Amino acid sequence: MTTTRLIAPGDLSAIIGDLGFERFLDELIDRLTSALARHDPDVLATMDRTGFHYGKPDLGLLEWMPAMDRGRRVSIKTVGYHPTNPVERGVPSVLATTALYDTTDGRLVALCEATFLTAARTGAASAIATEVLAEDGPTVLGVVGCGAQAVTQVHAISRVRPISRVLAYDADPDVAATLQSRIPIDGLVVEVVDADHLPGLVERSDVICTATSVPPEEGPVLPDVATRPGLHINAVGADFAGKLELPDDLLRRALVVPDVVAQCLLEGEAQRMTVDELGPDLATIVRDRAEHEQHRSSLTVFDSTGWALEDLVAAELVLDHADRLGVGVEIELHPDLDDPYDPYEAVRRR
Amino acid sequence: MTTTRLIAPGDLSAIIGDLGFERFLDELIDRLTSALARHDPDVLATMDRTGFHYGKPDLGLLEWMPAMDRGRRVSIKTVGYHPTNPVERGVPSVLATTALYDTTDGRLVALCEATFLTAARTGAASAIATEVLAEDGPTVLGVVGCGAQAVTQVHAISRVRPISRVLAYDADPDVAATLQSRIPIDGLVVEVVDADHLPGLVERSDVICTATSVPPEEGPVLPDVATRPGLHINAVGADFAGKLELPDDLLRRALVVPDVVAQCLLEGEAQRMTVDELGPDLATIVRDRAEHEQHRSSLTVFDSTGWALEDLVAAELVLDHADRLGVGVEIELHPDLDDPYDPYEAVRRR
Repeated sequence: MTTTRLIAPGDLSAIIGDLGFERFLDELIDRLTSALARHDPDVLATMDRTGFHYGKPDLGLLEWMPAMDRGRRVSIKTVGYHPTNPVERGVPSVLATTALYDTTDGRLVALCEATFLTAARTGAASAIATEVLAEDGPTVLGVVGCGAQAVTQVHAISRVRPISRVLAYDADPDVAATLQSRIPIDGLVVEVVDADHLPGLVERSDVICTATSVPPEEGPVLPDVATRPGLHINAVGADFAGKLELPDDLLRRALVVPDVVAQCLLEGEAQRMTVDELGPDLATIVRDRAEHEQHRSSLTVFDSTGWALEDLVAAELVLDHADRLGVGVEIELHPDLDDPYDPYEAVRRR
Repeated sequence: MTTTRLIAPGDLSAIIGDLGFERFLDELIDRLTSALARHDPDVLATMDRTGFHYGKPDLGLLEWMPAMDRGRRVSIKTVGYHPTNPVERGVPSVLATTALYDTTDGRLVALCEATFLTAARTGAASAIATEVLAEDGPTVLGVVGCGAQAVTQVHAISRVRPISRVLAYDADPDVAATLQSRIPIDGLVVEVVDADHLPGLVERSDVICTATSVPPEEGPVLPDVATRPGLHINAVGADFAGKLELPDDLLRRALVVPDVVAQCLLEGEAQRMTVDELGPDLATIVRDRAEHEQHRSSLTVFDSTGWALEDLVAAELVLDHADRLGVGVEIELHPDLDDPYDPYEAVRRR
């Protein structure tokens, strides 16, 4: 019986120290693009996210996102979303771990801290959506909600488009004020915008990312104003029934591109829409990129609710680099038995 | 941010070394009985087991079993069942881990090896079913399928009934021959029975446990012969659509008590039955024990498919003893951040 590898923040730090954030993001974007392009549900199966939602002690949820690369591996990311975490407890609102299992024997191969990876893969998905749906050239990037997810949105998108300026808004001006210092891009220009100037942010942006913790039923966060014809929006905050970031009218005049159709109808921006009103999903657009070229000059929305496929790709990228660099702690989590029929052997006092 | 506790076989060994198997089983049976008696789905919520089933490289499945003690904790047991493991790889067919999460902030509190615990809690559930459904007094216990699960079936049932004799059958006589040596009960009499004497095993037993790896569509394993009026059967092997251990006729003349109704109809012995043909579930019988007293003199079947509630109870029992004894390795799996809005802080080279 081989061991289980634990990949903690210090191990991710060693990997990022070796590669740099940029190369890590580039590899993640490349691998995710390939996975989307060759996505075949019979080979790479995912299940819709499910979980427990609760209101005690605070509003929160704990969900699991399973994916299977058939004949090889299963990944299950478990993710908690507890919006009061940063203010009440000083911890991220999203905390996640990804477990990788070998489908030969069911063994837990690796358990990887996935809070950073969740932010990174969500950024990578928006970068891919931006690459195939937004206009080319220097980009004014509007950011609505400047928490942890905003950092990787800006950083990943900077790998596919030159960002001329970031227009940043957050309901908490202190959070907006620190955005620039949290994004490791030399010379990045971040202009903080207050609530009165949110309409201007929408009008001036070529691409917008919404990544807020707006409570259910209190949205939308984006004002319903005129938009540039080629505006592309990555709406990444939606993850709860009733939680919405975009105004109805804007959504209805846009091509809405879901990551996972059923999930978007349940808890994405698309929860106000029927399946017939949706555009093709991101995998379809990546696969037939030329055919969908014309959408780049019209209003498009990537409805990003998060996909187990993204988590599988991110965890395997990390595990490959952990193998290469020899980082991560190996533990003997499963029993190593002489007699597989003796459940007591491993726990008997030796 | 506090740490995550890893509870590996060596830690379970320290707990069992302190308590002894008997006291551990007694505490597990007690706690599970209480949980069943006060089970209220609004307080203690469970979700039906789901997962990936596959035939490559071998027949196998990987499933997850979530439970929530509302306002406090979520447990998710991930369990693999790979019937070729013992013979092909020398590892148990069931490999499992249980993760416990804090619903205040979503943190992974503990990850516990659950292969031993799965066997222990399955034994405890059968002991409870035997306690409330079988006749009192010295018991001849028939065991059909003598692998890992059989050990805890016999051991746990011995905590609620004096076992006068075990009648043991396995399709592999070598496995049946070692059963006695794997069960730490002084003076236990185990009589190995061959295939020709399976009808005699059924006729002579007061309680029978079936825990086989019979492939789907190749059952039943129990012959359809006359049974004692008060015979009680714990059918614990069913976990796959098409996998059946009991003959149709026997099932139809018995009171069938499911652990989880929906799951039993899907993959338990009850997959041949309609919901109307089922008896009350085990929690109902434990709650209203006096009212169901009369079933003890008739033929009863506990259809044990495994319940996430059992896994939550087992993992918490272990965690309580791990706390008391100070065992288990604490790791910093989640990022410890000064700025919860900076996803890079934890992975930056320090």
